[in-house]
Amino acid sequence: MKFNQTISSIFVIAFLLLPAFQAMAQTDSDEHYNMTSILPEGNEVSGGNFTGTVWVNMIILPEDNLNTNGGKVKFEPKARSNWHSHPGGQILIVTEGTGYHQIEGKPMQIIREGDVIKVPEDAKHWHGASHEHSMTHTAIGPNLDKGGAEWSEPVSDEEYNSIN
Amino acid sequence: MKFNQTISSIFVIAFLLLPAFQAMAQTDSDEHYNMTSILPEGNEVSGGNFTGTVWVNMIILPEDNLNTNGGKVKFEPKARSNWHSHPGGQILIVTEGTGYHQIEGKPMQIIREGDVIKVPEDAKHWHGASHEHSMTHTAIGPNLDKGGAEWSEPVSDEEYNSIN
Repeated sequence: MKFNQTISSIFVIAFLLLPAFQAMAQTDSDEHYNMTSILPEGNEVSGGNFTGTVWVNMIILPEDNLNTNGGKVKFEPKARSNWHSHPGGQILIVTEGTGYHQIEGKPMQIIREGDVIKVPEDAKHWHGASHEHSMTHTAIGPNLDKGGAEWSEPVSDEEYNSIN
Repeated sequence: MKFNQTISSIFVIAFLLLPAFQAMAQTDSDEHYNMTSILPEGNEVSGGNFTGTVWVNMIILPEDNLNTNGGKVKFEPKARSNWHSHPGGQILIVTEGTGYHQIEGKPMQIIREGDVIKVPEDAKHWHGASHEHSMTHTAIGPNLDKGGAEWSEPVSDEEYNSIN
């Protein structure tokens, strides 16, 4: 359990720091002050808190002083996050593909391009791609002063396949 | 000045309440709990705090208990917001077209699809479409506990045309 938590921490730190250099590189000129881009696919962050292949491009970092983080996350087919919760809640805006979202104790939702999911504070949930299609969403994490994501166990194949 | 503030208040209230019925209608079934859609164009909110034709689809409302609001805003060519500021800051994700953004005292920025603008707390700014093209962005307003947008004077034609 301790080992898993260490691995999780490394991935959370990688999440936050690697794209910072990209963001810094884009704030050099007057025209691009305070600007990042949501277009790049970002960095592969497979493993750790995820099953399957996942790409993350962090567009809003704690350094932006908005008490909020944000990223574009692309899940390849069958990829998904571990179960986790956000002390400050989360907003997911699906921008491409088809995926699944589930809050513990509730039925799995099929989520599609255009869907906006409002995840309550501390709600244990997971999100990812569908069996056949990739899914990309913009994930917004407000109220960071309440703490970052709290990660839990992987979504088992049995849980993931229960949509069928 | 008082009259302008009253008009502004009416538009802010219209902003927040009209799309709430749409959101409520989408949370009836199990599959759609906590879900709205960013696809609809929303309601026309021209006048008041805006110059020109502007459409707003509120995707995150104060009732979502995330201390955050959010909406898709489409500005037709030449349309723009008044000068205003956000006590909790703002995040703009440009999803279509070409527009302008300016923080008071800084040069106007040309903003294009994919650009993510991080607007600091209390920074007086405006945003809108370019002369020739419409511009659509997702506007996220975190830290609502610090207060809603504080509206000011329209962006004059002289200011708007200064990009040329």
